[in-house]
Amino acid sequence: MAGDTSPNPEFSLADQADLRRVARALADAARVATLAHFRSAGLMAESKRPEDFDPVTAADREAEAAMRAVLAEMRPDDGILGEEEAAKPSRSGLTWVLDPIDGTRGFIAGTPTWGVLIALEAGDAPVFGIIDQPYIGERFEGGFGQAMMVGPQGSGALAARGGVALSDAVLFTTFPEIGTEAERLAFERVRDQVRLTRYGMDCYAYALLASGQIDLVIEAGLQAYDIAAPIAVIEAAGGIVTNWQGGPAYPGGQVIAAGSPALHAAALALLADQVA
Amino acid sequence: MAGDTSPNPEFSLADQADLRRVARALADAARVATLAHFRSAGLMAESKRPEDFDPVTAADREAEAAMRAVLAEMRPDDGILGEEEAAKPSRSGLTWVLDPIDGTRGFIAGTPTWGVLIALEAGDAPVFGIIDQPYIGERFEGGFGQAMMVGPQGSGALAARGGVALSDAVLFTTFPEIGTEAERLAFERVRDQVRLTRYGMDCYAYALLASGQIDLVIEAGLQAYDIAAPIAVIEAAGGIVTNWQGGPAYPGGQVIAAGSPALHAAALALLADQVA
Repeated sequence: MAGDTSPNPEFSLADQADLRRVARALADAARVATLAHFRSAGLMAESKRPEDFDPVTAADREAEAAMRAVLAEMRPDDGILGEEEAAKPSRSGLTWVLDPIDGTRGFIAGTPTWGVLIALEAGDAPVFGIIDQPYIGERFEGGFGQAMMVGPQGSGALAARGGVALSDAVLFTTFPEIGTEAERLAFERVRDQVRLTRYGMDCYAYALLASGQIDLVIEAGLQAYDIAAPIAVIEAAGGIVTNWQGGPAYPGGQVIAAGSPALHAAALALLADQVA
Repeated sequence: MAGDTSPNPEFSLADQADLRRVARALADAARVATLAHFRSAGLMAESKRPEDFDPVTAADREAEAAMRAVLAEMRPDDGILGEEEAAKPSRSGLTWVLDPIDGTRGFIAGTPTWGVLIALEAGDAPVFGIIDQPYIGERFEGGFGQAMMVGPQGSGALAARGGVALSDAVLFTTFPEIGTEAERLAFERVRDQVRLTRYGMDCYAYALLASGQIDLVIEAGLQAYDIAAPIAVIEAAGGIVTNWQGGPAYPGGQVIAAGSPALHAAALALLADQVA
């Protein structure tokens, strides 16, 4: 297209604007569906015992259904990979990856740090993503060469922070009892070298990394739909997301996100001590 | 006073309205001071090494100074117990207990779950308290026979939830590495019996308990100014806050908050196994 200065050769500026509008419509639809249930009574009704605690709430299902309805209307040829329903094959080469509520345990406990994750993949790689926190009214988005957020105190560009040594880094993970025993030991080797470790933020930690507020997120056992949107947002903000071997993170599993290449390399070396 | 139907005999309805107005003015002042620094660059500049990581930020000091200025104007005879400056003795029998930023580590990491804690004590007992989250714009208050919240999605009464068995309870604590070794073991005895344990919320966990979203908060090593406001809010919402021996929690130290007497007793018995 003449005059197209898009940083991503696969998408014209018009395509990018259209896809961004669709992604925001998905996030808007999920906000309504999730807030209808957040902090309402009876959220814990469906799961029976601690050992099979996997809270699949009405909010989860209704938010995904609402997003699928938007896509059926606006992007009928795109594929859909969602947490709740069967995958829909793509006829366009593009696939929307949806996690209606990332952090269901936090959602059930009333904390405002769960999120709606929306990513657009071309092939396997996420090219645009949104991390939305409906209760706070905060939206982090990245892709097509831009990263920005809108929240209760205003809006602004997102930029991961560089120049932070491992010994000065702030590290997040969701669970202190992360993954397998070997994964936990690897995590603890990094934890023991950083300045500050915090827990329990789910996808919100990735938004904080893209915002330049924290430096590392290390997790294990992720699903593909848990990490697609964070990859897009963080990479657009100048950060790095890989698996623990330095390879692509989009399949899920063991994931490390860092604000800079140097910090990423330092943390990866500590994790690898265990993997080797 | 004729027609005074106050549930607290020490305070007329007019006194209660006046003190509530002062408390809200304090929270408003602290909001401005803290938000001027939240998520700004350079927050980590003052602390040097992980082993003495005690982030005393400009926000902390400025928020307490702003609240002290409000009290100098509106309640010059009341005492002040703050985290940052020297205590001011009371000439009125009333003392304001101020923690300008509870959860400084969360504040520094950009998470929206730190809070401003404001409590009014008559003698040793908190009679009114506010837990305020400036970034979200969420305020939880309780005392003088009322408990309510205002947030981004509206306002409503606060009520702790009862009728939850220990095996169904949601438990929060700030650090997985809670307190001493003996304290950690006691905490883990409760953790191993509940349905779900979450970490890292600081004072926000007490607000969630008063909101009927969670059932237990167990912490150790608290300061008096960490717990005064949560006591007032939770008790006004029908919950219970004590130390691990079942005595008054307002001096700080080991604290347990519960949504109901039965749940409190069940958790206390597990904690006491270690203390005895």
